[in-house]
Amino acid sequence: MPLTSEQQAEVDALRNTRNQTWRAVAPGLEEHLHKTHNVLDHGFIRVIDYMGDDAAICQAARVSYGKGTKSVSNDEGLIRYLMRHWHSTPFEMCEIKLHVKLPVFVARQWIRHRTANVNEYSARYSILDREFYIPAPEALAAQSVENSQGRGQVLSGDEANRVLEILRSDSSRCYGHYEEMLGADDHGKLGLARELARMNLTANVYTQWYWKVDLHNLFHFLRLRADSHAQFEIRVYADAIGKVVADWVPLAYAAFRDYRVGGVNLSAKAADCVRKMLKGETVTQDVSGMSKREWREMCEALQI
Amino acid sequence: MPLTSEQQAEVDALRNTRNQTWRAVAPGLEEHLHKTHNVLDHGFIRVIDYMGDDAAICQAARVSYGKGTKSVSNDEGLIRYLMRHWHSTPFEMCEIKLHVKLPVFVARQWIRHRTANVNEYSARYSILDREFYIPAPEALAAQSVENSQGRGQVLSGDEANRVLEILRSDSSRCYGHYEEMLGADDHGKLGLARELARMNLTANVYTQWYWKVDLHNLFHFLRLRADSHAQFEIRVYADAIGKVVADWVPLAYAAFRDYRVGGVNLSAKAADCVRKMLKGETVTQDVSGMSKREWREMCEALQI
Amino acid sequence: MPLTSEQQAEVDALRNTRNQTWRAVAPGLEEHLHKTHNVLDHGFIRVIDYMGDDAAICQAARVSYGKGTKSVSNDEGLIRYLMRHWHSTPFEMCEIKLHVKLPVFVARQWIRHRTANVNEYSARYSILDREFYIPAPEALAAQSVENSQGRGQVLSGDEANRVLEILRSDSSRCYGHYEEMLGADDHGKLGLARELARMNLTANVYTQWYWKVDLHNLFHFLRLRADSHAQFEIRVYADAIGKVVADWVPLAYAAFRDYRVGGVNLSAKAADCVRKMLKGETVTQDVSGMSKREWREMCEALQI
Amino acid sequence: MPLTSEQQAEVDALRNTRNQTWRAVAPGLEEHLHKTHNVLDHGFIRVIDYMGDDAAICQAARVSYGKGTKSVSNDEGLIRYLMRHWHSTPFEMCEIKLHVKLPVFVARQWIRHRTANVNEYSARYSILDREFYIPAPEALAAQSVENSQGRGQVLSGDEANRVLEILRSDSSRCYGHYEEMLGADDHGKLGLARELARMNLTANVYTQWYWKVDLHNLFHFLRLRADSHAQFEIRVYADAIGKVVADWVPLAYAAFRDYRVGGVNLSAKAADCVRKMLKGETVTQDVSGMSKREWREMCEALQI
Repeated sequence: MPLTSEQQAEVDALRNTRNQTWRAVAPGLEEHLHKTHNVLDHGFIRVIDYMGDDAAICQAARVSYGKGTKSVSNDEGLIRYLMRHWHSTPFEMCEIKLHVKLPVFVARQWIRHRTANVNEYSARYSILDREFYIPAPEALAAQSVENSQGRGQVLSGDEANRVLEILRSDSSRCYGHYEEMLGADDHGKLGLARELARMNLTANVYTQWYWKVDLHNLFHFLRLRADSHAQFEIRVYADAIGKVVADWVPLAYAAFRDYRVGGVNLSAKAADCVRKMLKGETVTQDVSGMSKREWREMCEALQI
Repeated sequence: MPLTSEQQAEVDALRNTRNQTWRAVAPGLEEHLHKTHNVLDHGFIRVIDYMGDDAAICQAARVSYGKGTKSVSNDEGLIRYLMRHWHSTPFEMCEIKLHVKLPVFVARQWIRHRTANVNEYSARYSILDREFYIPAPEALAAQSVENSQGRGQVLSGDEANRVLEILRSDSSRCYGHYEEMLGADDHGKLGLARELARMNLTANVYTQWYWKVDLHNLFHFLRLRADSHAQFEIRVYADAIGKVVADWVPLAYAAFRDYRVGGVNLSAKAADCVRKMLKGETVTQDVSGMSKREWREMCEALQI
Repeated sequence: MPLTSEQQAEVDALRNTRNQTWRAVAPGLEEHLHKTHNVLDHGFIRVIDYMGDDAAICQAARVSYGKGTKSVSNDEGLIRYLMRHWHSTPFEMCEIKLHVKLPVFVARQWIRHRTANVNEYSARYSILDREFYIPAPEALAAQSVENSQGRGQVLSGDEANRVLEILRSDSSRCYGHYEEMLGADDHGKLGLARELARMNLTANVYTQWYWKVDLHNLFHFLRLRADSHAQFEIRVYADAIGKVVADWVPLAYAAFRDYRVGGVNLSAKAADCVRKMLKGETVTQDVSGMSKREWREMCEALQI
Repeated sequence: MPLTSEQQAEVDALRNTRNQTWRAVAPGLEEHLHKTHNVLDHGFIRVIDYMGDDAAICQAARVSYGKGTKSVSNDEGLIRYLMRHWHSTPFEMCEIKLHVKLPVFVARQWIRHRTANVNEYSARYSILDREFYIPAPEALAAQSVENSQGRGQVLSGDEANRVLEILRSDSSRCYGHYEEMLGADDHGKLGLARELARMNLTANVYTQWYWKVDLHNLFHFLRLRADSHAQFEIRVYADAIGKVVADWVPLAYAAFRDYRVGGVNLSAKAADCVRKMLKGETVTQDVSGMSKREWREMCEALQI
């Protein structure tokens, strides 16, 4: 159970209090507010607050582009135009704040997205809970043999069992020792400083933070982290956030899917090849100027 | 009249529509929403949207510091502690979006605050209005003789009249020529591109933008721009924003006033002098290690 | 003459002093150091300092990716891989500092690139020079009739002459009044504060700044500002910088040209169309799911 | 031994190759280039590259402030003025790049400084070395009883021995299992993906990164991390960097020490008290408007 009963009571109280506001409201996101979406075995995301909606993107763009963009009928077209031409500032006008619980090794990847605001649970001040990420059997993947940062086939049988046994016992033993080191007693034991004791915890221990980000930077996060090359354990967070964003700003999210996620970037050389192919010419890798790897990536993307 | 009648109708419509939300609401700021606060002769600020309140700062701090900070009774103490010890991240959890109309030379100072989101009216796309900042008589200051970036006494009589005449006639003539250059007609005149014609406008022409910023960076803006060393024409904007912030996050704003605005920074050398003075020793500039200017600044700050 | 004789003497002195360093050196960029490259009628760029080279990009990437990337033989391949897969952080390891002289209306576009360091000449402290951008005849373009932010055909004859006359006389008159307002005299005239007097200057007046940026953000600047949609007056600066960058980091610049500048981004819908076309199917706009404008943009990019 | 013999050979080669440059050179920093400064038991910092020196700060400030600041004789005064009045942009004109080896729990604090460029060793791609931070006896501190994020007295005797035994054995066992899980063999064992196996490592394992930052943001880092409230294990890195900076930009570093590190910030209320005390009045905490804690902090700072 990711939330403590105390936290759940807080969520329930918040969901029972509805306020009046003169701000714009995104009905689809209101439904998500405060509720937890479980991710991995003990993690979650939940929306704490937000600002703006699809209309706020258009409103800001119209300040920039003036009267030519006034007609309300084409919000969708305007948003698609902004996304297509990399006009990123109107998307920065929306903001979302999430409460996230996640393993430390995922947090270390996540924090590299610098244009965001973060308050993380401090293990200098407070004691971390006894909660660790242990992969589900289908996530227990071998090292890929082709890709030095990827995963290959799923482990099974004795090897899988041994890995799970190691992960469980090491994190548990380390946590037990963490508690032992912290524990002052009445017989003169002082207890190690929390800021030191935490160094004995393994990287699958859970932490939590508040994370606030604007929509432009969130799309950048989603493009990189909801991608098939991202590590599975951060991708599931990105996927959960993506679903929330789809309900928050449906027009912007659809444009993002079309132009960023599902799109194909052709290099100058690849674009040349495609132009020739479309004219009926036969083009091969050795005359394309592209490396074998680039050629293969292009063929896969275009299903040639 | 800073707002067009069309814009005023929009504001009125927004003020007549009240929505329900599960988000936190800052009652003091709700009253400001959408309304214009006039600044200078044609400028204004108005609050378009916001996220968070004093409680949101504490909420984020408590995620970081854990259970030790749970008691609701001491929100004020917690906020003062955060401000005093430069714990800036919880203040980043609040966000505000303003619509600002301002002269271009003010916009050029303002934009140097990089950690903010901006959508400015584009004079490449659209035609600027015929509105210029002309200083009120009491703002018509001479160059300071002591301070190369400051103002001295107020101009009067013929000199003042001549300055006002210049400012009015030059901005007006330039604007007239701007319109003339833009104007295509039916007799073959093409009209100069808007992105070129704008170069003929003077720096007191008004522009407008949406400006979105978190509370930490807004405090930084206010500390520098509501300061007596800031140019009067940006300070009046900072002052107007300061009043809004006081109604939005009263506890954080009071802490900001106490620790940042009204505070005194002593250098190591100045602190040494003060320590000696408090012990009853007599200290003079020549033994202080401070320059004459630093010594004078310290004496003024401490009213010695 | 963009540089004063005093500045030119400084440049000459710097070029006559060569130092020893244990830092990496980019021979191609050393040749540019301190020299001015003229841009527009009075502007310039010149390289003041830099850090890193192509090898520094690889060095940083190899810290990240470890031993698998050690072979020195494939620096080019590594850099192309990083660019292709949007691994931006190694490019941030190179930094360049430029001295730029540019018209104010260009500076206002430029400054929107926030991830850079800037020190601009302050017209609060100092008096601006009497220098204005007046477009060359071939840059005197009419407003585009199709594109609200673009340029159409070049003005000629009387219309061109009238525009040039306006630009010259208005900037000159405004500058003359600027000097007049500033001028204190011995007969009691105080002189208007510099921070106020500057508001009478037109937006084609030249300013200057030091601008420091990392290579990743510089590429982003170049992609947007050396693009055919950028305003001509900023594009010439981007083009001049691009030539310098080509000499500084030839491998990275070539990769940037191939993957960013000359590349084509296909949306999900456009990619679907291309896949079908490559299989020999006939696809038309009305079944493509794309708007007429998007369809046209795709056809132009692929020369269909 | 923090550097491998291979890395040491690289350093030696770099120190044997001296290049010619037209860039400014900081002689004090040249001496540090490439050399390692050991920190903690296996960590280090070493300078990889840099840009600028004290003169570069003044050069940039003079672009801003114009001719009034031209006299070369007062570089020190100018730098002190900039620091005292929070003119931060000229300090951003200097940049330094460090190679740092540090425990993961230190890296997690360090990375919160967002305005910097980082390339970290990736445990998705590569296998981490068997190196862990084990505190020296004098760093083995108990939890503070007054300060929830601080340290108290040093542990000794059996308690100290038990802590060291735990830290050593847990990190070693976890690392052994990490290797075991990674190990593919010829008998069908696939080996766990590196990106998963790393989660079994404890937070005292060493990582390394390239870290590039401008001087303004580096001073901010040093102010927070070379402070007595910072955790000892990051403070020793900040101290080592501080020594390097003192040799790089001696004038700027001295100003930083005087105005930031050794200075005292008085709140408005505290400044009021000090003014009264300096006039000979007796002021006590209960009439000061300050909390007991603030009062105590002020008395300590001023040695009252």
